[in-house]
Amino acid sequence: MNSYPDRAARILTRIDHLATISETATGITRTFGTPAFLAGRELVQGWMQAAGLATRLDAIGNLRGRRVSPMPGAKTFVIGSHIDTVVNAGRHDGPLGVLLGLDVLENLGQETLPFHLELIAFSDEEGVRFHTTYLGSKVVAGAFDTNLLTKADATGVTLAQALAEMDATVSSRHLAAIDYHLAADAIAPADFLGYFEAHIEQGPVLWGRQIPVAVVTAIAGQRRCELTFRGMAGHAGTVPMPMRQDALAAAAEFVLAAEAMARADAHGLVATVGKLTVNGAASNVIPGEVRCTLDLRAADENHLAAAHDGLRITAEKLAAARGIALTWTPVQTGAPVTCDPELTDLLGHAIRDAGHETVALVSGAGHDAVPIAAVAPVAMLFIRCFKGISHNPLEAVEASDVAAALDVTDRFFAHLATRHAITY
Amino acid sequence: MNSYPDRAARILTRIDHLATISETATGITRTFGTPAFLAGRELVQGWMQAAGLATRLDAIGNLRGRRVSPMPGAKTFVIGSHIDTVVNAGRHDGPLGVLLGLDVLENLGQETLPFHLELIAFSDEEGVRFHTTYLGSKVVAGAFDTNLLTKADATGVTLAQALAEMDATVSSRHLAAIDYHLAADAIAPADFLGYFEAHIEQGPVLWGRQIPVAVVTAIAGQRRCELTFRGMAGHAGTVPMPMRQDALAAAAEFVLAAEAMARADAHGLVATVGKLTVNGAASNVIPGEVRCTLDLRAADENHLAAAHDGLRITAEKLAAARGIALTWTPVQTGAPVTCDPELTDLLGHAIRDAGHETVALVSGAGHDAVPIAAVAPVAMLFIRCFKGISHNPLEAVEASDVAAALDVTDRFFAHLATRHAITY
Repeated sequence: MNSYPDRAARILTRIDHLATISETATGITRTFGTPAFLAGRELVQGWMQAAGLATRLDAIGNLRGRRVSPMPGAKTFVIGSHIDTVVNAGRHDGPLGVLLGLDVLENLGQETLPFHLELIAFSDEEGVRFHTTYLGSKVVAGAFDTNLLTKADATGVTLAQALAEMDATVSSRHLAAIDYHLAADAIAPADFLGYFEAHIEQGPVLWGRQIPVAVVTAIAGQRRCELTFRGMAGHAGTVPMPMRQDALAAAAEFVLAAEAMARADAHGLVATVGKLTVNGAASNVIPGEVRCTLDLRAADENHLAAAHDGLRITAEKLAAARGIALTWTPVQTGAPVTCDPELTDLLGHAIRDAGHETVALVSGAGHDAVPIAAVAPVAMLFIRCFKGISHNPLEAVEASDVAAALDVTDRFFAHLATRHAITY
Repeated sequence: MNSYPDRAARILTRIDHLATISETATGITRTFGTPAFLAGRELVQGWMQAAGLATRLDAIGNLRGRRVSPMPGAKTFVIGSHIDTVVNAGRHDGPLGVLLGLDVLENLGQETLPFHLELIAFSDEEGVRFHTTYLGSKVVAGAFDTNLLTKADATGVTLAQALAEMDATVSSRHLAAIDYHLAADAIAPADFLGYFEAHIEQGPVLWGRQIPVAVVTAIAGQRRCELTFRGMAGHAGTVPMPMRQDALAAAAEFVLAAEAMARADAHGLVATVGKLTVNGAASNVIPGEVRCTLDLRAADENHLAAAHDGLRITAEKLAAARGIALTWTPVQTGAPVTCDPELTDLLGHAIRDAGHETVALVSGAGHDAVPIAAVAPVAMLFIRCFKGISHNPLEAVEASDVAAALDVTDRFFAHLATRHAITY
């Protein structure tokens, strides 16, 4: 077996190679089903085959490489992450988990495992092209919504058409036929032993604490809302302060109330007002109407719901105090996902055994582990990234952190094999 | 002499008639020099001539009607307001002052006055076409900036070209010739006895207090600034609250700090953040950069400067506390104008004599009285408008308020004639 630094270096070389394949002349953009996506997937498929894996492309375009266990009744354990990207992406978000998984598989040696190991490079996690996330992992989880097949991209191409065009396994354009293939590509819960995903943190906690890896205990649930504050526009010079119904002042109070609630929260709640627009804005006009967004995330569903309801009451009170009408529109909800306690415990042991402090983080960003968690136990390993920067060409990881993650992941699978060898 | 209700009704009929002349099929838009502007001016000129005034069009396009005093050494007292409008304007902003002035002149009777009376319908107060206000009144005040002649409108027509095209008195396109004409149209300070302007309040104070008219003591000075808050954009899910540099949260604090300072001010300071833009905004991205405007107005220059400097320090402190960089750019300043104490006192007497409570207001909006105040004593009478709404088709005044304003204005000029008859 090669040393961890050597293995880490090879992973980073492969990531750099994959990063050269883009829809754009500069930067990295490799969205679902595009020629760049297909070329990137082919590159990774070649590496999988060279590692001795039996590969196939499934109906949603996932690249799947399998190491089969000869043991009777063996279930499937999946290592996964995605190979699509956002627009003008970093190189590590997704590919690091896939290529770290591939390296772990390559270095397992010849001993018999008590489970099949399947490495999946998910085809669409970011959801850029069809504005719907987790296409690849939803299919593996058996949770694909057939209605999505008729959803069109910006050029009018439907998902069904895109699948037929990109992949020989979906030769028909009949929705029922595509749907049949997609359903067949799910791993049944009874056969699904578990799921492991390594991913850059995409946040600054490990960077700030100078620690290479962390175990993820949960993936935060999310509530997105849109708020409209309607006051009364007026002349900035002629309406005395006590007679104003300034929609921006009300919105400003809300921005700070949301921030204060999250800051005071002891359970990792985060609240963000990311968009704010003054309608009919002019420097000499008192704002009459302001729209803004709210993005709330927390690891616990009840906690998230309580924060949401509390902020809504706060917003209504502060608007009413100014004679301002408030509209509060829920836009999107995503339930929190709890990582499997046993797998997470095993991963924590692996981190400790490798000599690192065990930091437990809640992921504020979504991952392919989210849909998978509905049908299988999931574990996630976070790897420190440069200043927490992600979805940005500046995204970077240190080779030594990748080496640490490899060490931890090897130990995790060794523990897992031992445990299931006893069980079976 | 007709009754005040009859006179008020005729003024409102004339305003309605003038309001039918617009650049647009619906609404009222009559900007400087357009065919609609020229047609409106011609209509008003006809009314002036019918009232026995000697009328002329000056080089900047002002319509001027004069009632000459035979008394030796008589100076000129000007009644003025403007007949241009903003886009999609109300009907009273400007025309009410002109047509109320005309009605007062028509009803003066035959007695000899100790001063010439000149009614001026200023050609451009709003500054819509050439983005510079008070063109008409600046010429009368002898404060016209010749450089403005080469300023172009949205279609590339310069002010010099526009003047030559709209008016036979400016037949040459040579700037020096135009400049000569403009300078000749100023009223020399030594000959300028005073200035009176009636105008709708454009604010809600009289409406709220149910009072028809007010005396204006000052026209607020103004400071306009642009602020940029530069923090750090980040993922709304992955950056913990204590690690954020949220530019919108900083801007929100500033919005509320500006409001709080003005609310606590005992001298009528008003502060408005009218525009606020989140650059690169997305609902799931922590705002990295926010730009906003600040509009500050107060009747006293020192007070205004102190408020400006205080808010700047506040903004710098609150930005620094969040690790956010602040850029503060002054955009525009306008010094406050104090109305003449003697004329204002005379006007206050007239209001009391007419049986109304004497309310003194500071005008938060600018008026033609601003440039005139540099060369002559000015007085202004505010007339209540519906809910304080202006620059809007909903702009409206009650006939009974116009009647009250006529009564007050007649008394004001009677007092003025008496005073100057004794003086001369």
